[in-house]
Formats: sequence, structure tokens, C-alpha cells
Amino acid sequence: MAKKKIAVYPGTFDPVTNGHLDIMRRSMCLFDALIVAVALNPKKNPLFPIEERVKFIKDATRDLENLEVFAFDNLLVDFAQNHKASVIIKGLRAVSDFEYELQMGLMNRSIDQKIETLFMIPSQEYSFLSSSFVKEIALHNGNVSKLVPQPVKARLKKLSK
Amino acid sequence: MAKKKIAVYPGTFDPVTNGHLDIMRRSMCLFDALIVAVALNPKKNPLFPIEERVKFIKDATRDLENLEVFAFDNLLVDFAQNHKASVIIKGLRAVSDFEYELQMGLMNRSIDQKIETLFMIPSQEYSFLSSSFVKEIALHNGNVSKLVPQPVKARLKKLSK
Amino acid sequence: MAKKKIAVYPGTFDPVTNGHLDIMRRSMCLFDALIVAVALNPKKNPLFPIEERVKFIKDATRDLENLEVFAFDNLLVDFAQNHKASVIIKGLRAVSDFEYELQMGLMNRSIDQKIETLFMIPSQEYSFLSSSFVKEIALHNGNVSKLVPQPVKARLKKLSK
Amino acid sequence: MAKKKIAVYPGTFDPVTNGHLDIMRRSMCLFDALIVAVALNPKKNPLFPIEERVKFIKDATRDLENLEVFAFDNLLVDFAQNHKASVIIKGLRAVSDFEYELQMGLMNRSIDQKIETLFMIPSQEYSFLSSSFVKEIALHNGNVSKLVPQPVKARLKKLSK
Amino acid sequence: MAKKKIAVYPGTFDPVTNGHLDIMRRSMCLFDALIVAVALNPKKNPLFPIEERVKFIKDATRDLENLEVFAFDNLLVDFAQNHKASVIIKGLRAVSDFEYELQMGLMNRSIDQKIETLFMIPSQEYSFLSSSFVKEIALHNGNVSKLVPQPVKARLKKLSK
Amino acid sequence: MAKKKIAVYPGTFDPVTNGHLDIMRRSMCLFDALIVAVALNPKKNPLFPIEERVKFIKDATRDLENLEVFAFDNLLVDFAQNHKASVIIKGLRAVSDFEYELQMGLMNRSIDQKIETLFMIPSQEYSFLSSSFVKEIALHNGNVSKLVPQPVKARLKKLSK
Repeated sequence: MAKKKIAVYPGTFDPVTNGHLDIMRRSMCLFDALIVAVALNPKKNPLFPIEERVKFIKDATRDLENLEVFAFDNLLVDFAQNHKASVIIKGLRAVSDFEYELQMGLMNRSIDQKIETLFMIPSQEYSFLSSSFVKEIALHNGNVSKLVPQPVKARLKKLSK
Repeated sequence: MAKKKIAVYPGTFDPVTNGHLDIMRRSMCLFDALIVAVALNPKKNPLFPIEERVKFIKDATRDLENLEVFAFDNLLVDFAQNHKASVIIKGLRAVSDFEYELQMGLMNRSIDQKIETLFMIPSQEYSFLSSSFVKEIALHNGNVSKLVPQPVKARLKKLSK
Repeated sequence: MAKKKIAVYPGTFDPVTNGHLDIMRRSMCLFDALIVAVALNPKKNPLFPIEERVKFIKDATRDLENLEVFAFDNLLVDFAQNHKASVIIKGLRAVSDFEYELQMGLMNRSIDQKIETLFMIPSQEYSFLSSSFVKEIALHNGNVSKLVPQPVKARLKKLSK
Repeated sequence: MAKKKIAVYPGTFDPVTNGHLDIMRRSMCLFDALIVAVALNPKKNPLFPIEERVKFIKDATRDLENLEVFAFDNLLVDFAQNHKASVIIKGLRAVSDFEYELQMGLMNRSIDQKIETLFMIPSQEYSFLSSSFVKEIALHNGNVSKLVPQPVKARLKKLSK
Repeated sequence: MAKKKIAVYPGTFDPVTNGHLDIMRRSMCLFDALIVAVALNPKKNPLFPIEERVKFIKDATRDLENLEVFAFDNLLVDFAQNHKASVIIKGLRAVSDFEYELQMGLMNRSIDQKIETLFMIPSQEYSFLSSSFVKEIALHNGNVSKLVPQPVKARLKKLSK
Repeated sequence: MAKKKIAVYPGTFDPVTNGHLDIMRRSMCLFDALIVAVALNPKKNPLFPIEERVKFIKDATRDLENLEVFAFDNLLVDFAQNHKASVIIKGLRAVSDFEYELQMGLMNRSIDQKIETLFMIPSQEYSFLSSSFVKEIALHNGNVSKLVPQPVKARLKKLSK
């Protein structure tokens, strides 16, 4: 078992929330390295450009060694192979998440049998949290201090004016 | 990351199926050691005594190094701590599995923050498979050759007569 | 397409409800013959003996040609083969029904590829109805007139005294 | 709207947990009076006799005016009518809870159109909590201090010895 | 308990259906006043302008005292506070509704602990009904007489030509 | 039972997948004729024009007698009536599919009581497969050979360049 275990944590992260960061910290303890993969995802019409979404995560994870952040626009399985990762990490909040992720996991396995999808449970205090909810609250001038890192909060505040 | 990563795969395994064995083999690739934890579970009124359930798994995993099988009758979290495991592995077939396991995972985390529950997707060919279904088929003289290891099949055959 | 299409509608029917009868009448329109298969199911510890469960259905379906009622205690797939049926009918009320029935359907298909499971939607007025609810209400002297055929109601009344 | 609004909160409460007490306190704020209805439920084979289950709740709610606790063994709808209640309160933790409760709510409405079922969200810290989990932990000598009121904890401790 | 209980029933109501009106009438019986809150929701790209969506509801609820209808474009929790409401009402048809609403309810509680979300069961005859289905049927010249109030039907008819 | 049983299998088919073709072949065995109904569905903004979506299916089903393919843009129930079909066929992969289709089925029944919706289980190897996943993979130059008929694959390849 000398081989390093590398995991990929993919998402749109528009923007990163404390729920995402919780999953990152939890997975750091389980694998030798974690690669956060920020999907370009133009179809979802993200609020923040990809560079900013990547930067938010980098800023919030400066204290974490063995964590890298990349943008990607190819198939997730190809991205994982390129980075020698054997695990894809997903956080599961709800049943609806689960079904979609189960289908994605099976599809990815059909492409590459060697890459395993693992599901983690986010901290209970973030079980309702999603990037959409954060944007919804922030753009109506609600308080998102406990939901996102400080720089994301500051940036959202500017947008809501 | 020098510390060995040990995972526990708990269940009643009454009896072990090829679906369980699939999860065991998949998790072997992800962690340094795997401990299969067979719950005594007298309330479920198992068909096979605990010694036999343990033996079925040992027989079917002889070729796997770094895998051990134990019976247990204490709290799963205590069992994991005693074996220095930091991960609990569960296979998820269905939404109903998921909800129950999510609650168990949150409860276990409330007892010990350091033990993480990870969910894996079983191979698609076993997505309908459960120990109950196997017993149902075998006790009605159906063919379970593709569903369980050979010694389990032989033992079930004797029972159905 | 000269071959007759025969469907099996299996269940414990402890006792038959108006929801079950609704599914029977709907399936009668779709296939050349319908066989209601009453599972012995001793593990579920039924309230009514198998003979009585069969008789309740026979009494309630006297006006229906091409419908037969049988008790069975073997594998459903074997029962279907013996009666030259190519279809298994199930009513779906809820998501939890669906998941269990999906697993059963996949297991049955793994035993015999030629037997197809079809799911039907019960009439909306029966979407909450189950044999357990009927027994619960009747044994507490509630009114089940709209939920079961008259002879079942009469029989439940005697039991509740 | 001069009529007093009385709500019933039914359950087996074997034993009452902090999650149940959270729902009681939340509903107290919404209605003029709350009646906790403890189901005899012999089929579920409860660990605690009905008198003890009632007493645990009475002890834990001494500070709450307008709350009463009763045992019941008739239909819930009949119980509600007898106590002039027009609302049934249920806590919803999970999707599987929801489906069962939706069917129960529809069945109860079919018996009495005037009694409305309302679902509440328990506090997030109790979203994994159930009486079964509490018993499971306590009987294996786990710590349930944060999950149940002190007297329940003390009583469970005696049982686990 | 002298304080008046005011509930908010939020939605996009594009357009209001008989299912929505059923929930309104049911909640009227439970609280001292009901405020229907019509979300501007420009992202959903509604078929009807906000003024018309409000007017449809006002017209259909003229006989109801203690019910008011407002448009809103701020956070629901802020809207509720401004109207001194302590309850948010939601109708639940399906499991997928439930999960989304559970997350929304938890998020809203995280913003204001004092505002409680309550879920109601719509009348069974409307359990399949949604504004999207109504628009789908009407725009294909289907008959929506039993699904929406008469003025909505008339307005949809004009659009479908 | 002399009347011919005609079934309709509706969808957007953007593009048809091997999962769809599996459902078509399975339904062919159950009914006297099958009509594949390709929805225009401009709101979903399909990748392929309707003529091409129809042609893909025709090409892939040349060997099947008693199967016809049509585009449609009216209500599905009206389309079924026009073609003297009494059955609507849907494949169910997941719980989320199920809920939506249950609501559609109930709505369609409310329009025409005589048209029955039947749900089928797709072959297990296609349980993760959807047109969206196929497009996602193909447009990122992934291999879709096992997922769609050859001409669809060829066409997708051109688009991805």
C-alpha cells in the first residue's frame, strides 16, 4: 500500500461555502492529497467567473498542505486520471443529491472501473447549505457570515448593492 | 500521512453476499487495512449463528491480505476505536438505505467526531442484492449461484430441504 | 401477437382492500387474463389464514371473467412460469414502495429474463390505503366501509369485539 | 377566531428524547394548548411500560403550562375529537418519515375532514435522533446525556447493567 | 396566548391553482390571519406579471376575511417579520417537495429562530397539481376547469390561441 | 379481448439511448403495437432538431415490426387518443423519475380515465443512463459506444469537434 492515495473533490463552487470547506477538511484526513476541481460549467451560468471561484477556495485553504485547486473543463474521469487520483469525493446532504450522484458515480465507473466515488456526510450545521441558498440570501441583503468565508461574503455584499 | 488508514465495514452478513464481497474488494484498494465487523444482532433473529457468519466471510476472503474479520456486540464506534480505525464503510444501494445510514452516520459522529462514515456504490450487477433476498430465493429452492460464494450456497441448500 | 398475455398480481392481501381491487380491474383491461397470487407469507404473521384471504378476493371479483385467484408458497417467478404468465403487476403508492419493488423486479428478472414487472398507479382515492391501515382502523372500531369490500368489513368487525 | 386551538402530538415515546421535547416546545408557541398522546402500541413491544413513558414526559415538561400528557389506545382521530383538538402535530426528520406520515395524515383526514395534520422540522441537532437509536446506544453503555432528559438516562443506565 | 397568530403562505403562484386555494382555506382555520406572499421571482421567468398573479388570488379569495395578498421581493424571513408573522406555511405533495422545503425551512430558521415552518397536506384530489402542469395543459388547449379558478382559466385560454 | 392493445412510449429522445431502445424492445413483447412519440419540447432547448431525433429512432428500430415513430406537439393524452392507444409506457430509473412520472400519470388520468400509465424497469446496465449524460460525455470527447446506437455516436462526434 505504498502508493499515494489522491482524491478529487469536484464542484461548481459558485461560490465555495463553509459546507464545501468542511468536506475538504474531512477528506484531507483520509487521503494523502486532495485536489479541488472547479468545473467551468458554462451551462449553469455561474455568478462568479472561474478564476474567482478558484481564488476563493485557494484563499480559504491556505493553511492546508496537500490540497491543490484547479479549474477543469474536461470529463471528470479524465481530469482524475491526469492527476493520478483514484477517488472522487462528494458530499451528500439530501436524498435528491444522492440519486443524482449515484447515477454520476455509476456513469463514471462505466468509463473507468478504477476510479471509485466516495460519499461523505457534511457537518450537520451545514446540511441545509448550498451555493444557491447563499446567493439567494446575500443578494437580498441577508447575513451570510456563518455560511461562507469572509472574502466571499465581502464580494457578495458588493454585488447586492 | 504516515499513519495507517484502517477502515471498518460493519454488517449482519446473514449470510455474506457477492455484493458485500464486492464492497470489501473495492475498499481494500482505498485503505491500508480493512476490518469486517459482523454484528451479533440477536434482535434481527439471524438465520446463521455468528460463528458461521464470520467463517463464511473468512473463507471467501482468504486471498486478501490486510483484511480481518471479527464478531462484535458493542457500539460500532467503540469497536472502531478499539481497532484504531478512523473510517466506517457502508455500501449504498437505494434511497432508503441512504436515509438510514445518514442518520446512523450522524449519530456515530455525535459520539466520536474523529470517525468518518464513507459510502460506496456497489457494482451495478449487485444493486438489487440483499441477504434477505438471497434467503428468500434459496429457501424456495431458487438458484443463488451468482449471488453468494459457493460454501454459502451449499449451506443454504441444506437448509431448504 | 397471437399469444395470450397473462399477468400475475401478487400480494399478501391480508385482507384485500378496495385499492387492490382497483388495480385488479385496471389490469383486466390490459391483459387477456389476470391471476391473483396470494402469498402464504407465514413470516409476516398474517391476521387471516390463507384460505380466507383467497376467498375474500374470489367473492369480490365474481363479476370478472378471466380472473383467477390462487394461493402460492414458492418463488413468484416459478409461480408465474407455471401459469404461463409473462407479466408481474404491482401497484405503486409511494417512493418507499417503489424502491423495494424495483429491487424485487430486478431480482426476479435476474432469475427469469422473460418475465417483466409492470407498475401501475392506483386510483388517487386509494393512495393512502394499505392492509395494515385497514386493520389498524377496524381493530379500533373505526369505519372501513369505503376501504374494503363488505364481507371483509363484516369479518373485521367480529374480530374487533 | 375566539375558539381555542388545541393540538395533539402523538407518539410511542419509548422513551421520550430531546428531539420530541424540542417539537413540544416549538408547538407550544403556535397553539393554545398541546396534548401529548402516548400510544399504548403493544405490537411495537415497547421497552418501557406506558405509565413510565407518560411519567418521563410529565417530568420533563413540568415547566410548561397548557401541556397535558395522556396515554391512549383508540384511534388517534377519536382521541383528538374527545379532546376537542383540531390539529395533529408530527416532527419530520427524513423522507421515509414523510411518506409514512403523509399516508397516515391522508387516512386520518378520510376519517375526519376537520382534523388537520401539520408537520414541523425538529432542531437540526436532533435530526438523527430517534428512540431506537437512544436505546441502542444506552444498552451498549454509550453516553446519551445530550439525547434524553436526565431521568430517562438514569433509567436506561439501570437497564443496561 | 393572547397574541394573534399570523401565518405567511409564500409562492410564485404562476398562476394560483385550486391546490393553492385549498391550502389557503385549510390554514385560515388554524391561524388568526393569513398573508399570501407572491414572490416576484424573475429568475423563474413567470408567465404572468406579478400584478396579475396577485390579482388572481385576490379575486379567488374575496369571501375570506383575515386573508391578505402581497407581492414581495425581499427575503421571506424579512417579509414575515415585517408582517409580524411567526409561521410559514407550505403545502407538501411529494418527497422532492419535502427535501427542498426542509432545506429552505432550516435555512430560514438559521436566519430567524422565531419563525416556524409548518407543512400541510393538500387535498388528495390536488396531489398531482402544479402551476407548471396547468400551464402545460392549458397551452395545449386541454381543459383546466377543475384545476384553476374561472378567471385564470379564461386568461390561459386567451394565451393559448 | 379481441381489441388490439396499442401503447405509446413518449419522450424527448435528445438523442435516443440504448436505455430507451431497451424499453422499446421490452414493451414490444407486451403489446400488439408500440408508438414512439417524440415530443417537440422547445422549452428544453434540444440539441437535435425533431426530424433528426425521429430519424435516429427509426434507424435503430428498422428490425421491429409493429413499431412506429411520430413527432408530437399536442397533449400526450390527445396524441394517445388519436392513435387509439390505451397505455402510456415510461421507464423508471430512479426515485426522482418516479415522483415526477407519478404526478404526470395522475394528471393524465384526470384528463382521460381510460388511458393507463405503466412503468417498466430498464435493464440494469442502463440504470445510470440518460440523454443528458450521453451528451455530457460525448461533447467532452468521451466514448459513448456502449450507450447509444452507432449513427447517434457518429453524429455526436461531429458536434464535439
